[in-house]
Amino acid sequence: MRDLARDIVLGKTRAIARGISLAENDSLGREELIDLLHPHTGKARILGITGPPGAGKSTLADLLIAGERRKGHKVAVVAVDPSSPFTGGALLGDRLRMQSHAEDEHVFIRSMASRGHLGGVSRATVDAIKVLDAAGFDTVIVETIGVGQTEVDIIELTDLVLLVLVPGMGDEIQAMKAGVMEIGDIFVINKSDKEGADKLRTEVEYVLGFKYAHEMEKMNPVCMVSAKMKQGLEALEEEAEEWFQHLSLSGLLEQKRKERIQKELKRIFSAKIHELLDKKMDFYNNVEEWAEMIYQKKVQPYRFINESLHDFLKKESE
Amino acid sequence: MRDLARDIVLGKTRAIARGISLAENDSLGREELIDLLHPHTGKARILGITGPPGAGKSTLADLLIAGERRKGHKVAVVAVDPSSPFTGGALLGDRLRMQSHAEDEHVFIRSMASRGHLGGVSRATVDAIKVLDAAGFDTVIVETIGVGQTEVDIIELTDLVLLVLVPGMGDEIQAMKAGVMEIGDIFVINKSDKEGADKLRTEVEYVLGFKYAHEMEKMNPVCMVSAKMKQGLEALEEEAEEWFQHLSLSGLLEQKRKERIQKELKRIFSAKIHELLDKKMDFYNNVEEWAEMIYQKKVQPYRFINESLHDFLKKESE
Repeated sequence: MRDLARDIVLGKTRAIARGISLAENDSLGREELIDLLHPHTGKARILGITGPPGAGKSTLADLLIAGERRKGHKVAVVAVDPSSPFTGGALLGDRLRMQSHAEDEHVFIRSMASRGHLGGVSRATVDAIKVLDAAGFDTVIVETIGVGQTEVDIIELTDLVLLVLVPGMGDEIQAMKAGVMEIGDIFVINKSDKEGADKLRTEVEYVLGFKYAHEMEKMNPVCMVSAKMKQGLEALEEEAEEWFQHLSLSGLLEQKRKERIQKELKRIFSAKIHELLDKKMDFYNNVEEWAEMIYQKKVQPYRFINESLHDFLKKESE
Repeated sequence: MRDLARDIVLGKTRAIARGISLAENDSLGREELIDLLHPHTGKARILGITGPPGAGKSTLADLLIAGERRKGHKVAVVAVDPSSPFTGGALLGDRLRMQSHAEDEHVFIRSMASRGHLGGVSRATVDAIKVLDAAGFDTVIVETIGVGQTEVDIIELTDLVLLVLVPGMGDEIQAMKAGVMEIGDIFVINKSDKEGADKLRTEVEYVLGFKYAHEMEKMNPVCMVSAKMKQGLEALEEEAEEWFQHLSLSGLLEQKRKERIQKELKRIFSAKIHELLDKKMDFYNNVEEWAEMIYQKKVQPYRFINESLHDFLKKESE
């Protein structure tokens, strides 16, 4: 494991890929690897890209990679798809657009698929970011699909979030979008040449104005781009740079990163206790039998739970 | 608490409302109340209605209430809105449509707002369903907004799910919808008079065909309705009745309900252990300090977590 950690820190592509696979499969040694890499993390900028399907996130990511490369930066992309197996095919095709950088050794692209439960995707993504950070990538782009809670959880792992919106999605989507408005740092209105782009900009600015009504904070930028026409990208890059400086100098970045660690701690503790429950209490084997007793009304649910929990903790202490 | 439980079982409206408030606010006595009501539960049919915003779920719920009332059934509706505060206003307005039944004492309508964290909504909803079930409602309709993971979690608490879709939402929404296709029992294509309704029906049937390609199970019904024009509702009611009979006779309903209890058990155990962590380990007060140490790279994250957990369990046993 020390060898693997060393090779990752040296930036060796195969070691990086192996490190991420370890994380993704929750393999033995994962914790040791992350602990070994920890001192080498904290240097990369973690950029999140989110927004509804069809907003052009992958195309935008592709152009941002090109921009970073022009600056001589090493870039990694983690494309997270925690959605249904039904959607898999189409969306994977989408990611292929980014393959224009496949030949560039300073660009690393990895898709994180949903294996097992959804919480697993978040954990694997955190670890993947750490591996890439330790490997010396200057920028790690995390791209998610969809706008559900899992996506929000994942995007909260990043330093700076680009929320990509497109005109013409109708009122139904407006409502959905509202749910993720809070997580955006920079609002990107893609397909700015399409009808309704200006109206959407006005709407976004209206909602943002509402957000800042009682604060004298820096207002989040709204950028109009056309990824297809390659318009507005330089302005977006500049805004992102400026916002990053703002986060960094104001101490908000440090605060964000510390809060991220706190969340991580809670999540890991929780996961570990579940493991213990399973080991000591044979929880996942017994739960079926317990559910049967509750279903049959042989026991009262909360009384039963409180007694079982008490027994578990007693056993755990012996 | 015994008095309150008795009044709920007697179907007294004020007691029901108080019981749900207890659940929603996680008040003292909540567990005792649910335990007391438990023997009286299991009789109601729990019907879930989900689908993207704007699909006409509330209007449909309204018509389903009327249908149930014609059969002489007592109906309760739990409208769950775990979404962003930004969306609150508009959606609450939506629910007002159901108020046509406000005068009917055999119809009980309650909105569950998102107080605190999202997990809290699921818990409060489970408890609210139990209160209404024990109170003798024949049918409990649970309506959610949006199509995120929280909504999926909530809708899994029901016996039978109507997934409401509408034509003309574009490809972007199609992808999102796919994520919730698995949870539907009956697929309702609303606004069937709109252009594209037949195409949507074909698409849904195509995806369903894919789902059943390797199984000889009963195929989920797809119903075309126009809630506005009050068309197709009788057919939908019949399909729902038939599907319910199918679930009931095949043993799937019992299985579903037992699985629901299993999920509940896991969730409650987890929540209780978090409470303990907080109490004994002062977890939520210390987590900030711990995050600081990890951020400063003074400790290795996993080693630190494993040691802390060990200490917690030791303390817990003393």
